[in-house]
Amino acid sequence: MTGTGTPENPTPQAATSDASVVERLSRLVDAAQPDPVVAFLHALPPDQTPYTLSHMDDERRTALFTLLATHDPDLGADLLEHFDDAYAADLVSELEVADAASIVDEMDSDEQADVIGELDEHDAEAILDAMSPEEASDTRRRLRYDENTAGGLMITEYLQYPVGWTVEQVAEDLREHGEAYGEYEVRYVYATDERGGLAGTVPMRRLVMAPRGTPVAELAVESASAVSVDAHTDALEDLFDRIDLSAVPVLDDEQKLCGVVQRAAVQEARGEAAEEDLAKVGGIVGGEELRSMPVVSRAVRRLMFLVPIMLLMMVSAAVISLFRDTVQRVPLIAAFLPLVAGLCGSGGNQAVAVSMREISLGLIKPVDVGRVAVLEALPGLINGAALGILIFFGVFLWEHDATLALVIGSAVPTTLLLAAVIGGAVPLLLRRVGLDPAMASGPVVTTLVDLAAYFTVLVLATLLLT
Amino acid sequence: MTGTGTPENPTPQAATSDASVVERLSRLVDAAQPDPVVAFLHALPPDQTPYTLSHMDDERRTALFTLLATHDPDLGADLLEHFDDAYAADLVSELEVADAASIVDEMDSDEQADVIGELDEHDAEAILDAMSPEEASDTRRRLRYDENTAGGLMITEYLQYPVGWTVEQVAEDLREHGEAYGEYEVRYVYATDERGGLAGTVPMRRLVMAPRGTPVAELAVESASAVSVDAHTDALEDLFDRIDLSAVPVLDDEQKLCGVVQRAAVQEARGEAAEEDLAKVGGIVGGEELRSMPVVSRAVRRLMFLVPIMLLMMVSAAVISLFRDTVQRVPLIAAFLPLVAGLCGSGGNQAVAVSMREISLGLIKPVDVGRVAVLEALPGLINGAALGILIFFGVFLWEHDATLALVIGSAVPTTLLLAAVIGGAVPLLLRRVGLDPAMASGPVVTTLVDLAAYFTVLVLATLLLT
Repeated sequence: MTGTGTPENPTPQAATSDASVVERLSRLVDAAQPDPVVAFLHALPPDQTPYTLSHMDDERRTALFTLLATHDPDLGADLLEHFDDAYAADLVSELEVADAASIVDEMDSDEQADVIGELDEHDAEAILDAMSPEEASDTRRRLRYDENTAGGLMITEYLQYPVGWTVEQVAEDLREHGEAYGEYEVRYVYATDERGGLAGTVPMRRLVMAPRGTPVAELAVESASAVSVDAHTDALEDLFDRIDLSAVPVLDDEQKLCGVVQRAAVQEARGEAAEEDLAKVGGIVGGEELRSMPVVSRAVRRLMFLVPIMLLMMVSAAVISLFRDTVQRVPLIAAFLPLVAGLCGSGGNQAVAVSMREISLGLIKPVDVGRVAVLEALPGLINGAALGILIFFGVFLWEHDATLALVIGSAVPTTLLLAAVIGGAVPLLLRRVGLDPAMASGPVVTTLVDLAAYFTVLVLATLLLT
Repeated sequence: MTGTGTPENPTPQAATSDASVVERLSRLVDAAQPDPVVAFLHALPPDQTPYTLSHMDDERRTALFTLLATHDPDLGADLLEHFDDAYAADLVSELEVADAASIVDEMDSDEQADVIGELDEHDAEAILDAMSPEEASDTRRRLRYDENTAGGLMITEYLQYPVGWTVEQVAEDLREHGEAYGEYEVRYVYATDERGGLAGTVPMRRLVMAPRGTPVAELAVESASAVSVDAHTDALEDLFDRIDLSAVPVLDDEQKLCGVVQRAAVQEARGEAAEEDLAKVGGIVGGEELRSMPVVSRAVRRLMFLVPIMLLMMVSAAVISLFRDTVQRVPLIAAFLPLVAGLCGSGGNQAVAVSMREISLGLIKPVDVGRVAVLEALPGLINGAALGILIFFGVFLWEHDATLALVIGSAVPTTLLLAAVIGGAVPLLLRRVGLDPAMASGPVVTTLVDLAAYFTVLVLATLLLT
């Protein structure tokens, strides 16, 4: 390792904090000497890599990947692969086209398409044009598939042999090309006929067992499944739930073998979908935002959620304004309107969360709205009664006004019962009309519960307190 | 297939709706003839199974599993494995101990522990006592491991051979026991020394390539990783991000080989954690609730979240009550308090969602609070200004009161700026003090934003409108 112009030891272990890791790597990049940079990154624990890279300034990070593109594109590809797709695309779009292409070239086939799919069309085309022709044409083909289908999840590195080959011929091929097959799915080999159709799935272990002269086709498992490129993630998850294989072959529209979907890829897609739902529930349109994105695009994604919320809340505000005489006579009611609405809104969102979970587990469908409403009514009423009693005493001790305490305390069970029923039902109803329950359930339930809460409290207050 | 006493064809395909599938299966169970029930379940598409079973009445479902325990425990185990653990435990706890044990006996080793871990201790002990002794002692050992560690995720079905064996001896063993190894992780075989220590990881493909007389130890991959039983899911995910293997061996405290963790199991655990976070964000304590659980336990899980929310909201209500004179003079302000607080609260929760995502991707840590606050300020201010202008015109057109419109409109940018900064920071601060950001961020952010909104609007209203 050549000198870096600094007295420190340029390894991550010598660094005492996250900040100093970032600083040391930055200094190595500034020195523009590839070997110490590559050595440092190889020594960096994988769980520190996203953090370290995201904390370098933009120009240094770009300089780092530019350097890797020439000196270790494989390491560059590895780093990108364990980032979120949107973040990897951010990094790639900052590079020169040729550098971006040589790194993307080294990525796994499924990750290539994911990252290129996140780029804008112009950048994506430029990078594809600069990639090696086979990789590029493979990636272009994959980009046509939805990322939630077998076509989007499959890898195209697999072992395929003519149906007439023997175990010895396969062994010979593995001896010759074994190292090049490093990243292949190698739990099975696939026997194909002359037109590329799948003739059999052969587990490696049967190749070990069999006499070397056996034709591989004879070793195929009888009941092995294959899926179409269009098969959706949900269907793949169900399939892997039922079978014990860790990968299934994928057939294109002409019934030719075109890839392999691994169980781990399906599980990973499910995890990513759940994480995106989390962001959508929080009100991020599209479910993806990182703070490394440009500020205007971040603000717009959020504003698209906040403007409809504002309009819905204007409607609720209009209900309160109808009762302004009541508020004028009992101004303290203004303090309890948000309390009843907010508390019952939380209760409604609990029911939303349970419905979302039961939908994702396949336990309920839109047709079960009635059943869900019945199952929500009882806990809604129990908790409403419990909270109503607490609030009655709270308000009474605070203001010594039994009627006010009665108005607020009795509005809670009514509203919470409604909130639980509405919250359980809304995700199913949204799904029935084709809207995304993760994104829309919260605002819809909150608005309906607000209306119910304001109306209940203000009508009771008007009747009993004015 | 014997007659069932009904004229219909007892296959799922003949059924025209989900409801009729449930009905037909129920009728077959009532007829108490095992063969048609087993045939029907084998023919039912896997994505319909959770739905169908959850829609049968409790006694029939229990009768169904009782029947499977005697006639096809393997199918019973398959059905349980593709349910959520809590739901599977629900089903198991309804069975006679002997029936439960014979079904659980047939489950994969990692699923056994997950389901038994969900049962109450008394039920769990009774079932373990009735299981086959080896399975039970294996499961008891696994129950000591946290489900988010290698020990909790590993399977104990793997291929292990003495370090001196040759390829031919391994092939011989596979020929003899191949069928029994059906559910084993068979991408690698593990060579072990006489005390059970791991001597090498041998990919199946090297066994295919090598001459049959080669000792397996010579075929081991040099740099293969092993993990300790205590390794956490996060560390395992990082490891699989970096390496190309689909499974790694697990070593116990005495460095003996005790299991294998598969990449798919780690991905699945990540997906389940994200789904639990979704339920926690919605306010379900523990992140698990299904409507099949007893109503009291469901109500209590929810109430534990709602009571603290109520207390926090009481504090916000107290702020409003301090300004009751202002409310009395400008009663319309009561209509806009929840609007400003609710809208800015949504903005704060957007920042929470982005921080949660960046935490789970390893992009930010508690020490980055300041950086996050800076990156939240600008979108907060931009969206605050945009919404403030919209609200100014909305209120002015509605009430023709420019001062009121100015009070509400100018409170929004101030509060939304604060909300975004608070929302971005709170998950990191909660994590620093060891609280669960998924559960606590929402209530904490909502309360702080409510306080900021009420205070801003009411102070401005007091100054400008009274």
